[in-house]
Amino acid sequence: MLPKQFVKEIVLEALKEDLRYGDLTTETVVPPLAKGSGSIYAREEGVIAGLPLARETFLALDESLACTCLIDEGAAVSRGQAVMRISGPLRPILSAERTALNFLQRLSGIATLTALWAGELESFSAKLTDTRKTTPGQRALEKYAVRRGGGVNHRFSLDSGILIKDNHIRAAGGIAAAVKRARSSAPFVWRIEVEVADLEQLQEALDAGVEVIMLDNMTPAAIRKAVKITAGRALLEASGNIVFEHLREIAKTGVDYISCGALTHSYRSLDMNLLLE
Amino acid sequence: MLPKQFVKEIVLEALKEDLRYGDLTTETVVPPLAKGSGSIYAREEGVIAGLPLARETFLALDESLACTCLIDEGAAVSRGQAVMRISGPLRPILSAERTALNFLQRLSGIATLTALWAGELESFSAKLTDTRKTTPGQRALEKYAVRRGGGVNHRFSLDSGILIKDNHIRAAGGIAAAVKRARSSAPFVWRIEVEVADLEQLQEALDAGVEVIMLDNMTPAAIRKAVKITAGRALLEASGNIVFEHLREIAKTGVDYISCGALTHSYRSLDMNLLLE
Amino acid sequence: MLPKQFVKEIVLEALKEDLRYGDLTTETVVPPLAKGSGSIYAREEGVIAGLPLARETFLALDESLACTCLIDEGAAVSRGQAVMRISGPLRPILSAERTALNFLQRLSGIATLTALWAGELESFSAKLTDTRKTTPGQRALEKYAVRRGGGVNHRFSLDSGILIKDNHIRAAGGIAAAVKRARSSAPFVWRIEVEVADLEQLQEALDAGVEVIMLDNMTPAAIRKAVKITAGRALLEASGNIVFEHLREIAKTGVDYISCGALTHSYRSLDMNLLLE
Amino acid sequence: MLPKQFVKEIVLEALKEDLRYGDLTTETVVPPLAKGSGSIYAREEGVIAGLPLARETFLALDESLACTCLIDEGAAVSRGQAVMRISGPLRPILSAERTALNFLQRLSGIATLTALWAGELESFSAKLTDTRKTTPGQRALEKYAVRRGGGVNHRFSLDSGILIKDNHIRAAGGIAAAVKRARSSAPFVWRIEVEVADLEQLQEALDAGVEVIMLDNMTPAAIRKAVKITAGRALLEASGNIVFEHLREIAKTGVDYISCGALTHSYRSLDMNLLLE
Amino acid sequence: MLPKQFVKEIVLEALKEDLRYGDLTTETVVPPLAKGSGSIYAREEGVIAGLPLARETFLALDESLACTCLIDEGAAVSRGQAVMRISGPLRPILSAERTALNFLQRLSGIATLTALWAGELESFSAKLTDTRKTTPGQRALEKYAVRRGGGVNHRFSLDSGILIKDNHIRAAGGIAAAVKRARSSAPFVWRIEVEVADLEQLQEALDAGVEVIMLDNMTPAAIRKAVKITAGRALLEASGNIVFEHLREIAKTGVDYISCGALTHSYRSLDMNLLLE
Amino acid sequence: MLPKQFVKEIVLEALKEDLRYGDLTTETVVPPLAKGSGSIYAREEGVIAGLPLARETFLALDESLACTCLIDEGAAVSRGQAVMRISGPLRPILSAERTALNFLQRLSGIATLTALWAGELESFSAKLTDTRKTTPGQRALEKYAVRRGGGVNHRFSLDSGILIKDNHIRAAGGIAAAVKRARSSAPFVWRIEVEVADLEQLQEALDAGVEVIMLDNMTPAAIRKAVKITAGRALLEASGNIVFEHLREIAKTGVDYISCGALTHSYRSLDMNLLLE
Repeated sequence: MLPKQFVKEIVLEALKEDLRYGDLTTETVVPPLAKGSGSIYAREEGVIAGLPLARETFLALDESLACTCLIDEGAAVSRGQAVMRISGPLRPILSAERTALNFLQRLSGIATLTALWAGELESFSAKLTDTRKTTPGQRALEKYAVRRGGGVNHRFSLDSGILIKDNHIRAAGGIAAAVKRARSSAPFVWRIEVEVADLEQLQEALDAGVEVIMLDNMTPAAIRKAVKITAGRALLEASGNIVFEHLREIAKTGVDYISCGALTHSYRSLDMNLLLE
Repeated sequence: MLPKQFVKEIVLEALKEDLRYGDLTTETVVPPLAKGSGSIYAREEGVIAGLPLARETFLALDESLACTCLIDEGAAVSRGQAVMRISGPLRPILSAERTALNFLQRLSGIATLTALWAGELESFSAKLTDTRKTTPGQRALEKYAVRRGGGVNHRFSLDSGILIKDNHIRAAGGIAAAVKRARSSAPFVWRIEVEVADLEQLQEALDAGVEVIMLDNMTPAAIRKAVKITAGRALLEASGNIVFEHLREIAKTGVDYISCGALTHSYRSLDMNLLLE
Repeated sequence: MLPKQFVKEIVLEALKEDLRYGDLTTETVVPPLAKGSGSIYAREEGVIAGLPLARETFLALDESLACTCLIDEGAAVSRGQAVMRISGPLRPILSAERTALNFLQRLSGIATLTALWAGELESFSAKLTDTRKTTPGQRALEKYAVRRGGGVNHRFSLDSGILIKDNHIRAAGGIAAAVKRARSSAPFVWRIEVEVADLEQLQEALDAGVEVIMLDNMTPAAIRKAVKITAGRALLEASGNIVFEHLREIAKTGVDYISCGALTHSYRSLDMNLLLE
Repeated sequence: MLPKQFVKEIVLEALKEDLRYGDLTTETVVPPLAKGSGSIYAREEGVIAGLPLARETFLALDESLACTCLIDEGAAVSRGQAVMRISGPLRPILSAERTALNFLQRLSGIATLTALWAGELESFSAKLTDTRKTTPGQRALEKYAVRRGGGVNHRFSLDSGILIKDNHIRAAGGIAAAVKRARSSAPFVWRIEVEVADLEQLQEALDAGVEVIMLDNMTPAAIRKAVKITAGRALLEASGNIVFEHLREIAKTGVDYISCGALTHSYRSLDMNLLLE
Repeated sequence: MLPKQFVKEIVLEALKEDLRYGDLTTETVVPPLAKGSGSIYAREEGVIAGLPLARETFLALDESLACTCLIDEGAAVSRGQAVMRISGPLRPILSAERTALNFLQRLSGIATLTALWAGELESFSAKLTDTRKTTPGQRALEKYAVRRGGGVNHRFSLDSGILIKDNHIRAAGGIAAAVKRARSSAPFVWRIEVEVADLEQLQEALDAGVEVIMLDNMTPAAIRKAVKITAGRALLEASGNIVFEHLREIAKTGVDYISCGALTHSYRSLDMNLLLE
Repeated sequence: MLPKQFVKEIVLEALKEDLRYGDLTTETVVPPLAKGSGSIYAREEGVIAGLPLARETFLALDESLACTCLIDEGAAVSRGQAVMRISGPLRPILSAERTALNFLQRLSGIATLTALWAGELESFSAKLTDTRKTTPGQRALEKYAVRRGGGVNHRFSLDSGILIKDNHIRAAGGIAAAVKRARSSAPFVWRIEVEVADLEQLQEALDAGVEVIMLDNMTPAAIRKAVKITAGRALLEASGNIVFEHLREIAKTGVDYISCGALTHSYRSLDMNLLLE
């Protein structure tokens, strides 16, 4: 679901930072007619995302390359499994290699981390969601990788959802006033979400009739109380410094969503490499 | 050393993905004349990089904001220390907050990780260097953060250095042939670096007269032998799956550079937030 | 609420299509040191939007121009009222004139049309909303002008809301199935909207628990029935070929929103001109 | 005559504002392998322009779509006539639909309005021409649509023609002086046009030997006199607040060109839709 | 007459190709607080163009630099004359130096060559004009430099004038047919120019009533005959492989314009340098 | 070695400055179905560079054109030799002609000049190298053309090599200090080059252990002494106002590289044209 033309543009920008003046090593060392073929392998278990970007990277340098995906986007791979096969002129394969892997390893890293966390929630009703804590300029890709890993996206941007935080509340003079303003002027196709710090604020948000409430930095015990008080009148999202070890404990409270900034701000690239034959 | 106009362009691109259509929460909830002031704080120890980007993010939305850096780029901060102060109209402060933090937390994450690794090497002659395993489109920023953290940059791109790898060697018919080709046609202002997998290849590279040799995935014992064989005739770079725990052991071998992809492909964002008064 | 840097970029793009090679008439005819001053006037009643764009257009050609807005964005103007005053070097004033007016007249045209329609709804609970039928590349500006004219924005884009239409429903195998899918995978911060063609589909949508229902091309009588059946369980949006003359009749049905594509696809520019003294 | 690569760029920009993060409704609701086919229909009489843009919009999302134009650019269509047929994967059809229609309906709206006005002039020598009152950033498309509708373009931009207006005249110290300056320095491949407000100025312009004279806001009677005085020594263009009802009366004066800003600043989109089978 | 915002964009693009990753020499060698001041000098006689670009280059890297033009655009300089003075932080001065000079030396080279040729024509009525043989992407700058050097621009582009060449004539079936088509459909604000290879074609062009005739590769004798035949009924432009030595001879024929591709395709950069104190 | 996608982008930018609004001559004069075929010829001896750009220019306007290169990039051509053949619809051939030739003639001009100078050095060990004195925005193309002509590139940019010049030396407090700083912080994969003005500085640079020394503006006699003193300890580059007539004399000194700014700042376009049959 990454539109073809966008992928082309993103890939071009990435290639430009790597070889605006050419790949001088390859140009001077590799004979122009040399051919090659090989595959990209996962060197550890994970979930793959970014294949269309890797593929386009090779094709951007040479449309005559044969470049075949060996698995589906979002599929799980085992250690040593091949995910893409490339063959054709050797020069563009070598010149594109690093950029292609940079896309693939990062997005697979996000998908893998998301799948790990989402897996932990499998027996619960709570779902895993992301945040806006993404790499500047890369959000569309990173949020896409979260989806491929089994997460549900939170709003994409400041212009795709309403989230009223403490500073908004203070500036508006309280939760009720803030919600009233947003309700009258913001796009009505969005639910209104309010961030609350304690159960008192939760009650105010419920009284204001909001559809989603973010429970910021609450303990599992507090979250459990919030679930009970809310009683289905709003969706509840647990947020703030949530670590993997506590995921199941938080999920047990009955909360609807658990958001995790680390999915996009502190992931590890999946180890992968390109081996030529 | 990030040129002012580039910073403006990068920031604009980041803001466009977050609020092309506006920040609807802030626009509808916060009164237009509301003022605010506050600071960005480090919530853990680290090294700061990215202040010019964070500053420009606020100013891009409103030139009338006062935005002061409280420490220097590359400085170490303690937990709870303020790094930047912003005051003026409240709306642009809230709209820019997340994007400013996204720049600052990521680049500080890289600088902090680099400083940690570089610190481990302080009593050795070996220096820490980075790789091309960067986020597509963000390399200039990420390599800059490595410098701020005390690392030395490896080549920036395929067009700023010669690195002859196994596939180049095979295509050229051996190290000697590959080096000869690069020597005659590539920019002479670059040293020629060759990647070797064992001591036999090391000898070939030395015979070919290269200036830098990358020792790929060698054990500390093998690296030590390589240092002895080389005897100062070339710079040696240890590379490949190097983990923090082994850094000092590798440094002890007398190798000149230790390269680490994780500095840019698997760092953790530094925990920071913006608190308004 | 148009970020300063975005405005600069949009204006630059517009100026480039008008004077990439220069304004040859002004350059050859007007002496370089000639000064001028004048004002932009509304030549008919209306609501003003686009002042920041017009102002930036003049400043982009010469930062030394004094350019003062005489009224607020979104304010109503009477025939003959001045809205902006410019003075300084004459050449850039003449070169920027048409582009500045093109921004201002169009956005004011949208704001004026929106205000006219929204005014018709004043004594009703129904609100006026827009559509995605905007000029390609200009949506952020056009949706902004709708807000300035007193309308409420519908979703901005395909990535800022869920609207399940007839073709989605058919592909999914019915309303219930479609809603279930969207509910489980789409961003949960959005309400789910379904387009229905008759009261039977309305019932299905209500059974599926959607939050917003678009009543497509229904008569006022059908809409009234829909309001009664719905009984507050979902927001109702009347849509499809709605003309000004029927607005009040539709509003009387008790529907919550009335959407109008003409606000952005068939508006008339507000008549304005620049008079120098 | 819209170059292929430009069309691609314009379409990409338009798609980016609609689905940078994806079309979440379609992605979550429509099965990935669903197929569809259908046609775009005119829902009212008109003249079609923009088919290459609509076609490219579909292909930009999926190159495997079959997308056939059923009529020529610039052709007249009757109510209910199909103009383009699309078939293939359903997801990209639905995601591209609105953007494709936005291009097609707007440009067809301009072409239709132009054809209507140009038709009124058919039995006269006067030709219909446009102005620079276009949507910022869209001028190439809008001027192209005017041509498709049977109009003749006036200058495209400040750098493609000389038009000396009242403020230029005043700054230069009279028509004679202004024309002399332009004649000596501006590109000689352009005719020089001067805007005049009355017959006295007309005489000055004729004395200065200009090739085109714009009669600004003159009555049909005054235009008739101007035609007589000019006696073929210059082309005459009637301009300023010209309404459809007066077109033939103005044409009868024998004027050469009638310019109309409304063709591009106040047109109505042609009603069209996409129906799938 | 180069709009400020355009200059900024062109300069940014140029700087990006030179220091995307920073100026590593200056960053590592020059202390951050070092100051400097100096001037740009002409090292040979010439005409200066490009000062606004050079100035913006310095300011783009550091807005705090003081950067003063010492002469006017288009002014003649003697050998050793200073044209611009810069002072402030040393780092940005050194980083911007080459790019600033690249703009200035090239455009001054064009202006100087143009002035030399135009000077040769001073005592004749013939004027010097340029062509579309410009550096791709740089035409606006290069045509601007021609104006600064005293030349008159020919059309800027394919969309700013009509020039009917041999291939157009053949495709249309003759000069008369070609001119008739252009006359009825092309923008009427342009003169129509036809390229002719001999006096027979000249007569056809005159019969067709064109306003400008390009005499392609004709001898001075043939041009003289063409002038006599034309007798003021059209402007005549001598074109094709014209060398400096023959300029006066061609001018003596009474031709109106002499066009010269070399002004923009084979100029020599003016020798200039930046000396710091 | 110009990546396909980059070529597309550069070509699009060039076409946009020539026919954003269309090629009005061709559109109005040439029948839409007219076909044509022809070839691009060299009208003088030279070395060809830029074929991929010329080819893409034609294809960007119409993908259905057949466009075949008749020789290899970098090949020598004789006067009258055809280098590329184009056939298909006539309109896009005519519209693309000038832009395609502008690319081809300029880059071939650089390659031809480079080959001429490099030929002069054939019997010597000295190699010809270029500088950063390139057209802003065109450096990648111009440096590429130098390679095609047989030159060796110097650094591409401020971020692809270290060159310590007089102002750096002064700011650092001497050659030794400057080199030490660069050595400790700059990318270690680059040789360090220092510019020296006399033999005393040469000695300092040798003492500092630099790998490349630029001999600025030295006489052949001084260069010969420098070669003797250096005795292979560093590469020597002769630079500064070097003219063709002195090339062999300088080469005889035994210097390693001779750099020449004129290759890119003062070349002459190769004379070429497109002839249709």
